[in-house]
Amino acid sequence: MSPFARHASDAVSTLGESRLIAAIRRWLGPVSPRAPFGIGDDCAVLPASRGRQLITVDPVIFGRHFDASVPPAAAGAKLLKRNLSDIAAMGGRPVSAVLAVTLDARTSVRWLERFYRGLAAAARRYRVKVVGGDLAQADGIFAASLTLLGEAAAGRVLTRTGARTGDRICVTGTLGRSLPTGHHHRFVPRLAEGAWLARQPAVRSMMDISDGLAKDLHALTPRRAVAALAPDAVPRRRGADLRAALTDGEDYELVFTLDGRADIAGFARAWRRRFPRLRLSEIGVFAAPDRLPAGALTLGALHGYEHLR
Amino acid sequence: MSPFARHASDAVSTLGESRLIAAIRRWLGPVSPRAPFGIGDDCAVLPASRGRQLITVDPVIFGRHFDASVPPAAAGAKLLKRNLSDIAAMGGRPVSAVLAVTLDARTSVRWLERFYRGLAAAARRYRVKVVGGDLAQADGIFAASLTLLGEAAAGRVLTRTGARTGDRICVTGTLGRSLPTGHHHRFVPRLAEGAWLARQPAVRSMMDISDGLAKDLHALTPRRAVAALAPDAVPRRRGADLRAALTDGEDYELVFTLDGRADIAGFARAWRRRFPRLRLSEIGVFAAPDRLPAGALTLGALHGYEHLR
Repeated sequence: MSPFARHASDAVSTLGESRLIAAIRRWLGPVSPRAPFGIGDDCAVLPASRGRQLITVDPVIFGRHFDASVPPAAAGAKLLKRNLSDIAAMGGRPVSAVLAVTLDARTSVRWLERFYRGLAAAARRYRVKVVGGDLAQADGIFAASLTLLGEAAAGRVLTRTGARTGDRICVTGTLGRSLPTGHHHRFVPRLAEGAWLARQPAVRSMMDISDGLAKDLHALTPRRAVAALAPDAVPRRRGADLRAALTDGEDYELVFTLDGRADIAGFARAWRRRFPRLRLSEIGVFAAPDRLPAGALTLGALHGYEHLR
Repeated sequence: MSPFARHASDAVSTLGESRLIAAIRRWLGPVSPRAPFGIGDDCAVLPASRGRQLITVDPVIFGRHFDASVPPAAAGAKLLKRNLSDIAAMGGRPVSAVLAVTLDARTSVRWLERFYRGLAAAARRYRVKVVGGDLAQADGIFAASLTLLGEAAAGRVLTRTGARTGDRICVTGTLGRSLPTGHHHRFVPRLAEGAWLARQPAVRSMMDISDGLAKDLHALTPRRAVAALAPDAVPRRRGADLRAALTDGEDYELVFTLDGRADIAGFARAWRRRFPRLRLSEIGVFAAPDRLPAGALTLGALHGYEHLR
């Protein structure tokens, strides 16, 4: 379903801004608090944070992050879930969001309603309040950008910079073929997993996999180390070959590193008890370049998704 | 100057995403803290807030909020200042921002550098840290959306809902002809004024004027009251007639209401001592519909800027 109305009578231009904003507040329902704690004043007022905060921003753009084959409710949910995946990757818990939408005056009201309702359903599920937004008009585009605020779910946040040479590399779930399988909008952000991992002292760094493991893993790699992967250990989504698992984008799984001296078997048991249905794979190690394990795959020749090319 | 490169060699596509992000961090300079407190991890980590927080989001879109006649540095500054004006309107102080940019692969690197440097200069001036962002690609558009976090500068925040019948209506500065005069990008957000006003107990409600006073004033108007304006008291920008002063958009001045029993002369003296160079005008009163002052102008027939029409 395309965002753009086939008949002028279904276009947002028939409503105008004021009635459209009233409709959006209805579509968002209880995830949209009353002003000044939500939409309707110059700013939204948020309570004081309980500690350190997390902030991230990610968009969905029609033709880029979804197309007419994606149901509008799924596109709305994807917008929130992309950002939730970033909060999960720090070991955080989401709190509140603001939303900037840029749309063509020909955007279909019915399409837009489903988009907002899909977003609202995801916000309810993950307990996120949508506290503010902006609507702007531009020709031929539907783009929505969401800023998400969160807080640390454990005593610490997990960043990309804690890994050391000798750390084991682990990933959740399976990788590759996110676009053809619809995983790119059906995925479940790994919030509970990220929060649990942040509470395990042996976990030293973490990020979510959005541009393909081959590209993203560089951000975790310590200086003077090389990611040495065991090719057979890389978990592949059904139908994905190794290259697809390493270079396709939009996996929205977590990759993290474990202290090489930690009890990996005990860690794996604790994971299975807590997350019995989500696969955890140890896929390699950060090794010194002159001490690569036999048969190790390094990522020199592989790249993930590079934007703006 | 258009955002789009005339020669392919000046387009962002020649850099690709990784080098472009490195360039952006250089252009932002010291207003962009190091990860995890700034750009470079899945989220940015913010310190705990000192109290209640404010959040707002507003975009600038090429062809909509600025055109090729606006210098790119001024467009970047405008993006931040639009949001600062919303923080000012609550009596707040800005703290940190994240930025989502959607651009065509043909966007000029030189144009983009000036846009970011203009934004960075404004961020330095108003002590805002740019802690995160996103870059996405879409054909034929340059759009940037900024989410700004702030905090109350006084003990309270001023909302749109505190006015009562009998309150006097006041505005800062002059109104009208913002677009032809360039005020729409040269304006100074009224942060110091908004913070001062929030400390004056006689001030009961406030907002910024962005869609034209005639439209925006409805949001302050108490139930069963009418905004009764003294036409000659409405401060006009040079060349603006009354209609332009009331209905043109993008004034970015403050409109606020004062308890009708307050000492207006004393208030005006205190204002002049604190802000000797910024005009303050008492332009009318919120009156009961059957007790309108003689000669009062009501706004029934006038509208401001209605988007999506």
